[in-house]
Amino acid sequence: MLKERRHVAAEFLGTALLVMAVVGSGIMAETLSKDVGVQLLANAIATGGALLGLITIFGPISGASFNPVVTVVGAILDRGVTSMSVVADVIAQVAGAVTGAIVANIMFGHATFETSQKIRTGGPTWFSEVVATVGLLLVIWGGKKAGANVAALVAAWITGAYWFTSSTSIANPAVGFGRMFSNSFAGIAPESWPMFALMQVIGGVVGFVIIRALFVDNEKTA
Amino acid sequence: MLKERRHVAAEFLGTALLVMAVVGSGIMAETLSKDVGVQLLANAIATGGALLGLITIFGPISGASFNPVVTVVGAILDRGVTSMSVVADVIAQVAGAVTGAIVANIMFGHATFETSQKIRTGGPTWFSEVVATVGLLLVIWGGKKAGANVAALVAAWITGAYWFTSSTSIANPAVGFGRMFSNSFAGIAPESWPMFALMQVIGGVVGFVIIRALFVDNEKTA
Amino acid sequence: MLKERRHVAAEFLGTALLVMAVVGSGIMAETLSKDVGVQLLANAIATGGALLGLITIFGPISGASFNPVVTVVGAILDRGVTSMSVVADVIAQVAGAVTGAIVANIMFGHATFETSQKIRTGGPTWFSEVVATVGLLLVIWGGKKAGANVAALVAAWITGAYWFTSSTSIANPAVGFGRMFSNSFAGIAPESWPMFALMQVIGGVVGFVIIRALFVDNEKTA
Amino acid sequence: MLKERRHVAAEFLGTALLVMAVVGSGIMAETLSKDVGVQLLANAIATGGALLGLITIFGPISGASFNPVVTVVGAILDRGVTSMSVVADVIAQVAGAVTGAIVANIMFGHATFETSQKIRTGGPTWFSEVVATVGLLLVIWGGKKAGANVAALVAAWITGAYWFTSSTSIANPAVGFGRMFSNSFAGIAPESWPMFALMQVIGGVVGFVIIRALFVDNEKTA
Repeated sequence: MLKERRHVAAEFLGTALLVMAVVGSGIMAETLSKDVGVQLLANAIATGGALLGLITIFGPISGASFNPVVTVVGAILDRGVTSMSVVADVIAQVAGAVTGAIVANIMFGHATFETSQKIRTGGPTWFSEVVATVGLLLVIWGGKKAGANVAALVAAWITGAYWFTSSTSIANPAVGFGRMFSNSFAGIAPESWPMFALMQVIGGVVGFVIIRALFVDNEKTA
Repeated sequence: MLKERRHVAAEFLGTALLVMAVVGSGIMAETLSKDVGVQLLANAIATGGALLGLITIFGPISGASFNPVVTVVGAILDRGVTSMSVVADVIAQVAGAVTGAIVANIMFGHATFETSQKIRTGGPTWFSEVVATVGLLLVIWGGKKAGANVAALVAAWITGAYWFTSSTSIANPAVGFGRMFSNSFAGIAPESWPMFALMQVIGGVVGFVIIRALFVDNEKTA
Repeated sequence: MLKERRHVAAEFLGTALLVMAVVGSGIMAETLSKDVGVQLLANAIATGGALLGLITIFGPISGASFNPVVTVVGAILDRGVTSMSVVADVIAQVAGAVTGAIVANIMFGHATFETSQKIRTGGPTWFSEVVATVGLLLVIWGGKKAGANVAALVAAWITGAYWFTSSTSIANPAVGFGRMFSNSFAGIAPESWPMFALMQVIGGVVGFVIIRALFVDNEKTA
Repeated sequence: MLKERRHVAAEFLGTALLVMAVVGSGIMAETLSKDVGVQLLANAIATGGALLGLITIFGPISGASFNPVVTVVGAILDRGVTSMSVVADVIAQVAGAVTGAIVANIMFGHATFETSQKIRTGGPTWFSEVVATVGLLLVIWGGKKAGANVAALVAAWITGAYWFTSSTSIANPAVGFGRMFSNSFAGIAPESWPMFALMQVIGGVVGFVIIRALFVDNEKTA
């Protein structure tokens, strides 16, 4: 396959498998346990396990952002990336996210197409989503700067962030979009998505500023 | 020991210890907790812990597939492997899987020989098992291509996949065969096994196609 | 940004995000589950996930101690560090810890400023906090001496130490100070903090002695 | 400190901290949760977290076996080790294990000296303990042969083995001895210890044979 096609296919497939993992483990969790703590623990650990694999295997092909905010921030920081490539990635991520939710719905015997009724709203939740996005960006670029295993860092961070942000750290407009199509534990009602996406964009801007200040070499000012 | 004998012994012993871990932790889990969520969490974490060790220690000897689908896909992708070697591996895997279930039965005071009554059937479950097998194959070959620690990737992925597939990702005809001999949480009724095996083969074919497209270098078409 | 400013900013931001993770996951846990075991499991896993990321990304900038005891012990062991630098780090850590608690309070809709009513006191708890601090110091300097991934060691150790010390291993006067400002599962009442800080200092002294004996090369005495 | 003293001190301190972690997390677990599944999950995860740190930091000093069976098997496999060194290690391990239980008792406000009333007996349990010891030995020497991070392998394996062996994989006569001095979840009654130790020795012999066959280079027979 051509390199460019592989790149887009990796973003599509990675985002699809990620949303499938998030939604699928959410459905399994609410089916098996009545303790919501146990449900979120399972959901968080399953998401972490999936992230480690998906970022590792698709990273060398597409960068494995699976996330429009990460893609755009990366394009601005790294230069050299064309707008066309960014647009193609975002389309692949959104399409992948919806596909992943549908695959989960089929696997768990839900209606193939359904929409979430889970309202996620209010100031604390919105603020939480800004913080969640900033945290994710810092871990990604700080990890890159440190020469660390970014897949492992992101997997562990998100497993924790399900718990330490009140919004359970969606932190990703594409994944959030896909999660609208699951009427389950991991879903987000369509009317709640736009504010989440806006908060994620704001988090992207704040994260970008901190990354520039802390993790980007700027010898001129030193 | 001769290299060829070590190879077969590693596949036998690794698959035996893997099935022992899957079945044993399933029995322990249903004994200790009434919350099925806690049971699956324990079962998944214990399986992940075992996989990390087993793949790491037997990998250099036999490749540590413990799985006929992985062995066959690997033989086709890598060439150079003889049919005899594949047949020997599969026999070792199946014999190991049955042995592992028996060892678990003895450790937990079950009847040495028993068969599962746990029916696992229906379209969503079958579809889930195709997806589970595809996911496992992508993580293995994508991880190899990326030069990553495949044992850690597979361990984390399967820990998650217990949760995000409705079939709990057996994804392995030999392990599934062994699990028929445990009448417990982790068992699979003999009448449910054939369709699982078929779905795993289909997953193997789909996974093979994706691996070829994404992870195998094919400069001629590029 | 100037190197010195980045250093202080990293200690501030890292400690803030750490306390946010500890407090936030504590609030989430007590909200979602009635089983205190499940609550502490979530709190511990979330803290571990955050620590792995934070120590990794801020380590190259500031050493990522986020902890006055670790900073002071490090300054004495390594020489070469100025008193001014130590004072600046400790101020950044304390300010960061308080900020982290406030951010968690806002995210979870608590009063922005609140104080903990959770009394943590008594001989066993105090003794536990000495042990907890010694353990943390040994893992950090033993890990450095072994050339290991200290972020991973500390993350895994603290996840465990939540459970195997009766004080849940606060082991950090700055983080303890910040946790006074959360009236939740992870809080510590202001009247309980001073003895915790004293025990952590004692643990620092004991840990320093053991580190000198076991992990520092002292050929002259050999 | 002299190299030989450091060696013995590392075995003492490492085994003490390990038993402290096992016993302490067991006490915490039974205090916080009524679900025995949650208790064992916490106990297992805490033990894994401690093992990763302890094996990593004491490995370069003493080999970090913390276990008479591992020490003896290692001495036979590696030659070059004197009997005196083995005896000193075993004494340090046993003394360390008892000390660790006492430290846990103090931290959790138990009687400083107490003995377990937890009977662990019967054929399945004894057989399980043989299997547990074999498994541990294979992971250690297989991991060494593979050039892997043995601390991580053992930590993950034991976290799982708490679940997949009916005896919860004590697999260590010194740690078992120490656990007699805790009347808690993680204890073992003094009358149950001798058969456990015997089974661990048998497991050591079986493990030794398999290691020789699979992981030791013996070109002459190849």
